[in-house]
Amino acid sequence: MASSILSDCSSARLLPLRRSLLPPRAPRLRSCPALATPRRLLVAARPQLLPRPRHMDSVPAATASSADSATVSADAPAKLIDGKLVAKQVREEIAVQVTRMKDVIGIVPGLAVILVGSRKDSQTYVRNKKKACEAVGIKSYEVNLPEDSSEEEVIKHIASFNSDPSVHGILVQLPLPRHMNDENILNAVSIEKDVDGFHPLNIGRLAMQGRDPFFVPCTPKGCMELLHRHGVEIKGKRAVVIGRSNIVGTPAALLLQKANATVSIVHSQTKNPEQITRQADIVIAAVGVANLVRGDWIKPGATIIDVGINPVDDPESPRGYRLVGDVCYEEASKVAGAITPVPGGVGPMTIAMLLSNTLESARRIHGFK
Amino acid sequence: MASSILSDCSSARLLPLRRSLLPPRAPRLRSCPALATPRRLLVAARPQLLPRPRHMDSVPAATASSADSATVSADAPAKLIDGKLVAKQVREEIAVQVTRMKDVIGIVPGLAVILVGSRKDSQTYVRNKKKACEAVGIKSYEVNLPEDSSEEEVIKHIASFNSDPSVHGILVQLPLPRHMNDENILNAVSIEKDVDGFHPLNIGRLAMQGRDPFFVPCTPKGCMELLHRHGVEIKGKRAVVIGRSNIVGTPAALLLQKANATVSIVHSQTKNPEQITRQADIVIAAVGVANLVRGDWIKPGATIIDVGINPVDDPESPRGYRLVGDVCYEEASKVAGAITPVPGGVGPMTIAMLLSNTLESARRIHGFK
Repeated sequence: MASSILSDCSSARLLPLRRSLLPPRAPRLRSCPALATPRRLLVAARPQLLPRPRHMDSVPAATASSADSATVSADAPAKLIDGKLVAKQVREEIAVQVTRMKDVIGIVPGLAVILVGSRKDSQTYVRNKKKACEAVGIKSYEVNLPEDSSEEEVIKHIASFNSDPSVHGILVQLPLPRHMNDENILNAVSIEKDVDGFHPLNIGRLAMQGRDPFFVPCTPKGCMELLHRHGVEIKGKRAVVIGRSNIVGTPAALLLQKANATVSIVHSQTKNPEQITRQADIVIAAVGVANLVRGDWIKPGATIIDVGINPVDDPESPRGYRLVGDVCYEEASKVAGAITPVPGGVGPMTIAMLLSNTLESARRIHGFK
Repeated sequence: MASSILSDCSSARLLPLRRSLLPPRAPRLRSCPALATPRRLLVAARPQLLPRPRHMDSVPAATASSADSATVSADAPAKLIDGKLVAKQVREEIAVQVTRMKDVIGIVPGLAVILVGSRKDSQTYVRNKKKACEAVGIKSYEVNLPEDSSEEEVIKHIASFNSDPSVHGILVQLPLPRHMNDENILNAVSIEKDVDGFHPLNIGRLAMQGRDPFFVPCTPKGCMELLHRHGVEIKGKRAVVIGRSNIVGTPAALLLQKANATVSIVHSQTKNPEQITRQADIVIAAVGVANLVRGDWIKPGATIIDVGINPVDDPESPRGYRLVGDVCYEEASKVAGAITPVPGGVGPMTIAMLLSNTLESARRIHGFK
């Protein structure tokens, strides 16, 4: 799974953001102690939301039990934003609401997942989603189609779920096989059941004042939930989103703006990302480059939400790799006011928000408050 | 029409942006010489794209004949971005294309405009659009409905134009009477004929990477056209959009981002608008507050696109008012590298882009390149 090797933070290659334009003062930073392998390489250019391997429990940052009081080490003042803990709370709240809905109106929310092909990682994601549904009482429906299925076959199944009253959310597991057009398939999902929130109509409503999307995409919704539950003030604050993907960066920026932050979006063509990021009270990093955001990119006291989950080789790990974020945690946690760890930060929130969207959809469809 | 009175730039009330948070150095600026009336008041909080009254020809900035060489005064180094001139060029190009389309496939692009009620300003806009259509050979269709029409009646007319093959663009003149729901009515316009580009699906496609909207809203499209035709480099540049309306600010920010600028959006909750704006190579001001953007908000050499058209009382003007932008032109033109005047800047581009969208729609519908 980990196809890339990375050295310490100070030598991490900064593409697609331009390293050549960084100020010359980077050397004052310590090497990122989380990484030891001396070679350098660019990791996946897109954030991967991986399932949380068991051995990750050994990462110190993920072991904190309280989001309010936890600190990472003696010289790391940042509060830990413990996504694992918050996600657990969210799932518990959802379970209570699902039970109440069933008791009061006899309806059980249902989530349908369509998987095409046999990618191991996709199978794992789907399995995890199914388990998470079961744990909160949401009924899950699954369709597995062979790799060589046609677009029409996939769309036929989507249409069937669109008209199935026991299904309140439909999710097509990405990536789809190459011969398929993602847009055609995702657009076939009824806007009322698009729990992933990827439909352009949802994104448009998210972007517009006075409109609300049917669903907010799960990962950026999870980022916002972490900010809200940790009492981070957003209104009037400067926010920087690093990355502009359709799945995370763009909707995260739109959400921050809807919450009245002043938002700047940093991307591969940005000439001075560190300078802009340093102005932010809130940073959401979702660019998929391991340890891109260094300590001196961060305004002291800022809140850092790290969406990136980048596998890097680690011979000492039982699996031969470990996961690191887009932010050099060791450096950032000494400057930031609060920070999410990787793993155990945004990752666990994504599935929790999927459950939340499915419950919300069932409530809306059945007019249940 | 001009219900507001404004003093010079230095005393212009800065709401909805917070004046109290401005740095104390504003006094170093001269009063904005374009304004002389000593009283102060906030003008319309939303940009108004007014027709260009004849007397406006007397405004010095609007009299320049060449966008490349014009300067405003001896001590004003900014190039004039002459929207009137560019709009004329665009209209001429459209006329050529309309003729070619008619000659080759016998199709004449058609634009339908629906006007509800009898607001004088709306009637003027509709008349101007009709005239502009005629001038380039686009056929215009007009429906005038009484103020007390029902939503259903308006939607019935929209549906009729949706299915009329001679109509390629449909525009519902805003504002609608208060008893109507704008969203219901605008959503009734077929996405393929939404030449205003206000449909959330269009905005969503504008926001997303790898997608393109059917139509780009006319005013922000006009801003981009001015930048492009004046050779302003956008990729990698810092851009600030002031205002986040659905009609101008939000789509302008999305367009700048699609063109690979690093975009920040300044709005009513932004605490230090002048500081953020001063970082920008490109500023699009679309907030509807007369002379909000002062000279010291501007980075020397920046390009300024002023969308605001704010009426302010002027007893010396034949109509008793004059129009000013969101930017204090007299100050800004001494700092900026290039700037649009008001009027004669973005205003004339809006109708030109409406014609462009209508032609584009006819071409797409008939597969004509």
